[in-house]
Amino acid sequence: MAKFALRKMRRKGLPSMSAQTVESRTSTENPSDSAGTSVDLGPASGLSCRECGQRFELGPIFACELCFGPLEVAYDLPLGDPEALRKQIEAGPENIWRYAPLLPVPADVADKPNLNPGFTKLVKAENLARELGVESGKLFVKDDSGNPTHSFKDRVVAQALEAARAFGFTTLSCSSTGNLAGAVGAAAARAGFRSCVFIPHDLEQGKVVMAAVYGGELVGIEGNYDDVNRFCSELIGDPLGEGWGFVNVNLRPYYGEGSKTLAYEICEQLGWRLPDQLVIPIASGSQLTKIDKGLQELIKLGLVEDKPYKIFGAQAEGCSPVSTAFKAGHDVVRPQKPDTIAKSLAIGNPADGPYVLDIARRTGGAVEDVNDEQIVDAIKLLARTEGIFAETAGGVTVGVTKKLIEAGLLDPTLTTVVLNTGDGLKTLDAVAATSQATATIRPSLDAFRDAGLAH
Amino acid sequence: MAKFALRKMRRKGLPSMSAQTVESRTSTENPSDSAGTSVDLGPASGLSCRECGQRFELGPIFACELCFGPLEVAYDLPLGDPEALRKQIEAGPENIWRYAPLLPVPADVADKPNLNPGFTKLVKAENLARELGVESGKLFVKDDSGNPTHSFKDRVVAQALEAARAFGFTTLSCSSTGNLAGAVGAAAARAGFRSCVFIPHDLEQGKVVMAAVYGGELVGIEGNYDDVNRFCSELIGDPLGEGWGFVNVNLRPYYGEGSKTLAYEICEQLGWRLPDQLVIPIASGSQLTKIDKGLQELIKLGLVEDKPYKIFGAQAEGCSPVSTAFKAGHDVVRPQKPDTIAKSLAIGNPADGPYVLDIARRTGGAVEDVNDEQIVDAIKLLARTEGIFAETAGGVTVGVTKKLIEAGLLDPTLTTVVLNTGDGLKTLDAVAATSQATATIRPSLDAFRDAGLAH
Repeated sequence: MAKFALRKMRRKGLPSMSAQTVESRTSTENPSDSAGTSVDLGPASGLSCRECGQRFELGPIFACELCFGPLEVAYDLPLGDPEALRKQIEAGPENIWRYAPLLPVPADVADKPNLNPGFTKLVKAENLARELGVESGKLFVKDDSGNPTHSFKDRVVAQALEAARAFGFTTLSCSSTGNLAGAVGAAAARAGFRSCVFIPHDLEQGKVVMAAVYGGELVGIEGNYDDVNRFCSELIGDPLGEGWGFVNVNLRPYYGEGSKTLAYEICEQLGWRLPDQLVIPIASGSQLTKIDKGLQELIKLGLVEDKPYKIFGAQAEGCSPVSTAFKAGHDVVRPQKPDTIAKSLAIGNPADGPYVLDIARRTGGAVEDVNDEQIVDAIKLLARTEGIFAETAGGVTVGVTKKLIEAGLLDPTLTTVVLNTGDGLKTLDAVAATSQATATIRPSLDAFRDAGLAH
Repeated sequence: MAKFALRKMRRKGLPSMSAQTVESRTSTENPSDSAGTSVDLGPASGLSCRECGQRFELGPIFACELCFGPLEVAYDLPLGDPEALRKQIEAGPENIWRYAPLLPVPADVADKPNLNPGFTKLVKAENLARELGVESGKLFVKDDSGNPTHSFKDRVVAQALEAARAFGFTTLSCSSTGNLAGAVGAAAARAGFRSCVFIPHDLEQGKVVMAAVYGGELVGIEGNYDDVNRFCSELIGDPLGEGWGFVNVNLRPYYGEGSKTLAYEICEQLGWRLPDQLVIPIASGSQLTKIDKGLQELIKLGLVEDKPYKIFGAQAEGCSPVSTAFKAGHDVVRPQKPDTIAKSLAIGNPADGPYVLDIARRTGGAVEDVNDEQIVDAIKLLARTEGIFAETAGGVTVGVTKKLIEAGLLDPTLTTVVLNTGDGLKTLDAVAATSQATATIRPSLDAFRDAGLAH
């Protein structure tokens, strides 16, 4: 998204937002944001450019001033005594803050008011395994619908919130068409931040309600999601946006790190073991890259034994720029105009697409897609086998897992973790047509018998 | 419900379902249900009548053959070494099965496929405390929206499921208009049971989808909820219903015990301390009575120090038979015809109403109600202060808490736990009218400035 926004800004001649410009504005116009080295974000030691490696001090910046590459958090990780670190983690709270020594947050983060997301269930999916032909004991669903606002977004927003606190921001903001709006609204409410969320003005009523109920500002923008994003980029570059932390723009480097916690939890819940295979949905691609980053950190820290693992990316056919590039053997991702029921994955120009391709190829994985009908079938398959009602994104990963097994790309004898990143209650429409009463009868035993319901 | 159903059955001359008749049917017609003493439900030693104390063997029965009183589970509790028991619990899984030694389930319950509900967050609600005038550090929300299907029903269904397993049932069933349908469908799917859920045929589309997605039988009954219940009672008494476990009818004694886990968790999460005050919603009243039972057990077991606590019951004004009786000083509860947005609490003739009155009076608590507008305000208050989006039942408890404080009945200087038993995503309609975008603007900074959104 950062890269995408920047490309668009440059193309359209909008104000740029490189590291340099933000830093000077911050230091001259907003003395409360001293940023830089005085900021306490725990083990985070700075930001580094993913493209050219240039280092920057910690601050509300997201793009390299040299090459416009995306910035990511660099760490001084607690190397040296894995046993002590493991014990510290295991003694920590039952949420993402048990991994505070590995995240860009202060050591006392668990004492601050936040939603305490994470440590969601890793469900051993024996019934689903049987249906998919996976060996018993080898298939797991990481079910992030158990988060406070029922999607993985609570993980990333919680990181952005801590960065916002550290930088002295008072408003938490984002552009969104769904899960993110609720996650930001809820996190801001609990932490005592003002929130201001921007949405397309014609969003479905249910989603408006879910975003508005937390009482922050909810602003409908006359235009589509691209218009909303362009407006947000303008606002960040303007004095009007001062003191505003846009979780997925100027706080994006911190925000993204939240997805690492999925990797940590999966390995810890497997008994401090790497899985052999992971199936991860791709929207911007950030989550997949950060899970890989998290796994690599665990290896570096000695918390898990180093061994090969394969990462598989999952897209909806109606928005499959990365799987298309993967299958064509391309390094670049060609944007698509999304048309799929998996709206939480419908990013036509995914900022981290090229990195996803790298990771899938490096680990020996793949990127695959499924169509809307397969998504619905997979949602219902997961529900009827494991009692987990997934959002459309979960239908994408389960559907892709099935397809990869059938194609011989995913080994059904190895430990495999499939991600469900959201809750079916948020995308009821996807399954409404095919999830109805099986019969309607008069209240009598005769009617019941006649309907063939007895057994 | 058991008592209510039986009263109705007797009134209408329907087949009775006393302990005796069920036991004899079970032993002669269904040899796989040997029931009786050979059933392993852990510390559960039998059933006893809440009215006359008569004991029965463990079995799929719910009413006393002598007096038609409701049956409840009796235990051989692990008395004697509280320290060892506490350690055992703390070393257990992060779900209700950590309390297996106190529940009617076999010791190896955690190894069986189920949804592993419970151990939901006890949220220290400092922002809400400030708004309600409660002393800092004293107000907590027990947030059961974190359960697998996002309501406390997962707790009770999980108990019923283990009883169903023990009695050799193969179908899990219930009558429902909402939360219970999803909880039963999901639990049955995961455990490999057939499920058959009965609903009024004209239920809202969203609720039908939530219940149907788990793939079990979902039967619309032409009639209202009373008709559905009457039909289910007939089915249990007929050979057609053989092998069927109705979680809230013939498995009700076990089902109800799931609510004790709320008491256990609250005390453990408070550091093995009793709270001073609890605010609990009343539908049938079962949950409130079982929480009291759970607190009493913890005292008996020496896991918490004995001290007084007050239990407050919360109802919606549009369905307030218990609060009406409480305020009038009556011992009996006069049925009402429900008319409230809090549909999950809309039981006009609550089976456990008289017991609730006893407990509220014995502990020095009270029963209060709030109207629909106050419920909506309270849902939004909780959302904007703590980032918790509650179902209407949560609006009832928070609204009642506010009212009790204003009336001087609830002491704002004491440790108080307010229950939220469900998720706002399931009752979006309640807040839809008043949760909307705060502004709609063109995508320009000028429009943003003109709307007064900058700060």
